[in-house]
Amino acid sequence: MKIFHHCLPCFARQAVEAAEMSTDDPELQEKIIRAALKKASEIPFDKSPPHMGKEIHRIIKSLLGDVDPYKSLKDLYNKKAMDLYPRMKETVAAADDPLETAVRLAIAGNIIDFGVSVKNNHFRLIDVIEDTLKRPFAVEQYQEFKEDVTNAKKILYAGDNAGEIVFDRILIEEIPEFKEKVVYVVKGSPVLNDVTIDDARDTGLTDIVEVIQNGSDAPGTILEDCSDLFLKTYREADTVIGKGQGNYETLSEFCEKCYYLLKAKCPVLARDLKVGVGDIVLKKQEPFA
Amino acid sequence: MKIFHHCLPCFARQAVEAAEMSTDDPELQEKIIRAALKKASEIPFDKSPPHMGKEIHRIIKSLLGDVDPYKSLKDLYNKKAMDLYPRMKETVAAADDPLETAVRLAIAGNIIDFGVSVKNNHFRLIDVIEDTLKRPFAVEQYQEFKEDVTNAKKILYAGDNAGEIVFDRILIEEIPEFKEKVVYVVKGSPVLNDVTIDDARDTGLTDIVEVIQNGSDAPGTILEDCSDLFLKTYREADTVIGKGQGNYETLSEFCEKCYYLLKAKCPVLARDLKVGVGDIVLKKQEPFA
Repeated sequence: MKIFHHCLPCFARQAVEAAEMSTDDPELQEKIIRAALKKASEIPFDKSPPHMGKEIHRIIKSLLGDVDPYKSLKDLYNKKAMDLYPRMKETVAAADDPLETAVRLAIAGNIIDFGVSVKNNHFRLIDVIEDTLKRPFAVEQYQEFKEDVTNAKKILYAGDNAGEIVFDRILIEEIPEFKEKVVYVVKGSPVLNDVTIDDARDTGLTDIVEVIQNGSDAPGTILEDCSDLFLKTYREADTVIGKGQGNYETLSEFCEKCYYLLKAKCPVLARDLKVGVGDIVLKKQEPFA
Repeated sequence: MKIFHHCLPCFARQAVEAAEMSTDDPELQEKIIRAALKKASEIPFDKSPPHMGKEIHRIIKSLLGDVDPYKSLKDLYNKKAMDLYPRMKETVAAADDPLETAVRLAIAGNIIDFGVSVKNNHFRLIDVIEDTLKRPFAVEQYQEFKEDVTNAKKILYAGDNAGEIVFDRILIEEIPEFKEKVVYVVKGSPVLNDVTIDDARDTGLTDIVEVIQNGSDAPGTILEDCSDLFLKTYREADTVIGKGQGNYETLSEFCEKCYYLLKAKCPVLARDLKVGVGDIVLKKQEPFA
């Protein structure tokens, strides 16, 4: 998905929020915001939106060094989600179709997204879970998904955010032979509240499946930025699971074997997917022309 | 009021909306948006927000010539408001305190503001009127206002938006000796849906009071941009009525004899006024230190 005009106000908001989260120094905040706006004025519109997220956080790093302003929020949501893990396991165990329920839970976890806005925290996870368990899918290709993940020899699961990773774990644990075939992917370095290797360790993902870093600092999966190790695994995989908006935005023009699992939180992406804001989506990539 | 960080995403949104309203040519839209973002990256933060609104519309004029993309919306809201005029007159006539009711109606009209967003059109004027007639003021200095407008020899009424001008007329007609003492001010040229001399003519304002143009193309009253005629009248006035957000933003650090009448629609301005979004305000300028 490419950058639309209406992404630009959102980039400006991300820059302001990230600047204010990263430093208390008003002069540095101003420098970050001005540099980000200038960068936004020059960004090619044929890139995907996460290119701009990457640039904002590169500006912050260039001015402040290796900071991770979202760290405490990430830890908080990892903990909140881990607290819900036993209850989610019970829900899955009691379900008629545990895999389908696990898919829904993985999508519910996609609410934890501070790219959409750091002020996007007025939800109670338990309410979102209950809503997502009974909400009709706006796009639903569950039968194909079930078949493909069951038959796949290697599945690459591109993670999205901290906290959400625990919900991904619930889904991964319902995939037949997950220990052997699922490779979970985290970002190469911190950007927004995206998952990193620390989050995978803190939430036990590293204990159950192979976890690799993608080598990139973008809030999505920009293939040309990714490491050789990631690209090798990506090529070998029969099925890719792209979790959340950032992965849809970056992979939807490149990855023919991808399933997108997400909750549509932004009107631009919702329009691209022909769904409504708030809708839940399990979509298989359409074949390229 | 100065530019706050959180004004910048709003400037980007204004630029995108204005670009898309001004031309159907994607290349020109992109040029407008890029130029506006670059300008936003350089704007001094000690200016008031309407400086940026002015710059966006200057960029559009420099690329497209003298266009008025909001013209049809302005005409529509002038007509909608004129249709309600007889009913509002009846409401005022039946009120215990007609001036106070007319103040409330003038504030109700402030909902018609396409700077806040051109998508800000999901209201029914009649609902907003009914709400504003019974809503408690968040800031209310009506007694001082009544006294000052009654005793003033010259009142300068800085108008805000098309459509809203009809609501201003309702208030003006309740001011004692309005024909002799009220001078209504419109913008020097079109910007957003701000009132111009055409709107004053179309809604009959020119028939009841003196109407002058302020000589500026900013969505507010930036004194250093205004004409000598405006400044002379401004200096002579005993009382100034600054209508709407743009006038509060541009006058609140300069005009000691000003009353602000507005509905707070933006969180940054609401915080500056220490009120909530949606609140209605009749505020006298506090004395400067």
